[in-house]
Amino acid sequence: MSAAEGSGNGSKHARVILQQCLSARLMVQLATDSVDAEYVQIGRGLIVYVCFFKGASETMIDNMVKSVLKARLSKQTDGGRLVSILDLPGDVMIMPQSTLGGKLKGNAMKFNGNIQKEEGFRLYSHFVEKCEKAVASANVETGHNSIVLYGTYGNKTEVFSTESPTNGQYTHYIEF
Amino acid sequence: MSAAEGSGNGSKHARVILQQCLSARLMVQLATDSVDAEYVQIGRGLIVYVCFFKGASETMIDNMVKSVLKARLSKQTDGGRLVSILDLPGDVMIMPQSTLGGKLKGNAMKFNGNIQKEEGFRLYSHFVEKCEKAVASANVETGHNSIVLYGTYGNKTEVFSTESPTNGQYTHYIEF
Repeated sequence: MSAAEGSGNGSKHARVILQQCLSARLMVQLATDSVDAEYVQIGRGLIVYVCFFKGASETMIDNMVKSVLKARLSKQTDGGRLVSILDLPGDVMIMPQSTLGGKLKGNAMKFNGNIQKEEGFRLYSHFVEKCEKAVASANVETGHNSIVLYGTYGNKTEVFSTESPTNGQYTHYIEF
Repeated sequence: MSAAEGSGNGSKHARVILQQCLSARLMVQLATDSVDAEYVQIGRGLIVYVCFFKGASETMIDNMVKSVLKARLSKQTDGGRLVSILDLPGDVMIMPQSTLGGKLKGNAMKFNGNIQKEEGFRLYSHFVEKCEKAVASANVETGHNSIVLYGTYGNKTEVFSTESPTNGQYTHYIEF
């Protein structure tokens, strides 16, 4: 096992992709013969893809939540000023995304650096919970009613659709 | 100037995010009082977000195109086998995404490592052209009719919408 494999992704323990969206919709119930598919939806806001590497721990979560929710990435409609998703204010959709941790070897993605599934689920749940608390607390302060939705860890059947502006501040990347 | 700033992003010269999609639509003409907005669209395929750092050069492009088009990331509908986008076969939507190169300092994204705009445009154009050629050549071999669409470098008014499966092989990350 190489050093990089042993410690996840070198000195990095989590990878986050942020995408601005005008709306995003997540299928929570597949269509069957008798019922239509069901969706949950956010309005303008931020989609947060999260992947943890080996070595990630709970002590990182507060910093991750702060970075994601307070980073000034969103353009206010009335001008050029960039504000955080809490200040926009906007909704948040969190998506577990273990595939983000892959490393391309030849033509195949290898996931040796990814955290184990149970541990990843635990950290993902903490991350979601702390984002929910931070947004709820911002809502109390500002009187807004922003929501946090999230994908199910390990669920492979979700369908996800987004409408996104590519206004030069669209997809961002953060490592922790 | 730190070493990291001088050389872009340390030893890395480009960052690519790949997202599987069921369809993706790109606005190419804003709606006005007299005309509706116009869109171009791909079907099932791959969205390729590309960002170049300082130090990136044309010699990397062939390897980038090969990695992106030949990486086995797409699940065939009839089974679990992963195949490349050329073998799926699927369409390709390329999106310039300079924001991907940002580094979070405090609550602001800094883009010191990004390549200069003119040079980035030149490399982006090469990347698009070589992807088009590779897909065209695969089409001749296979008899398929896959398409390559791409966003305009530096265009800030495009609106982008996608429908994506989150089947566990959805968002991938590659550095070059």
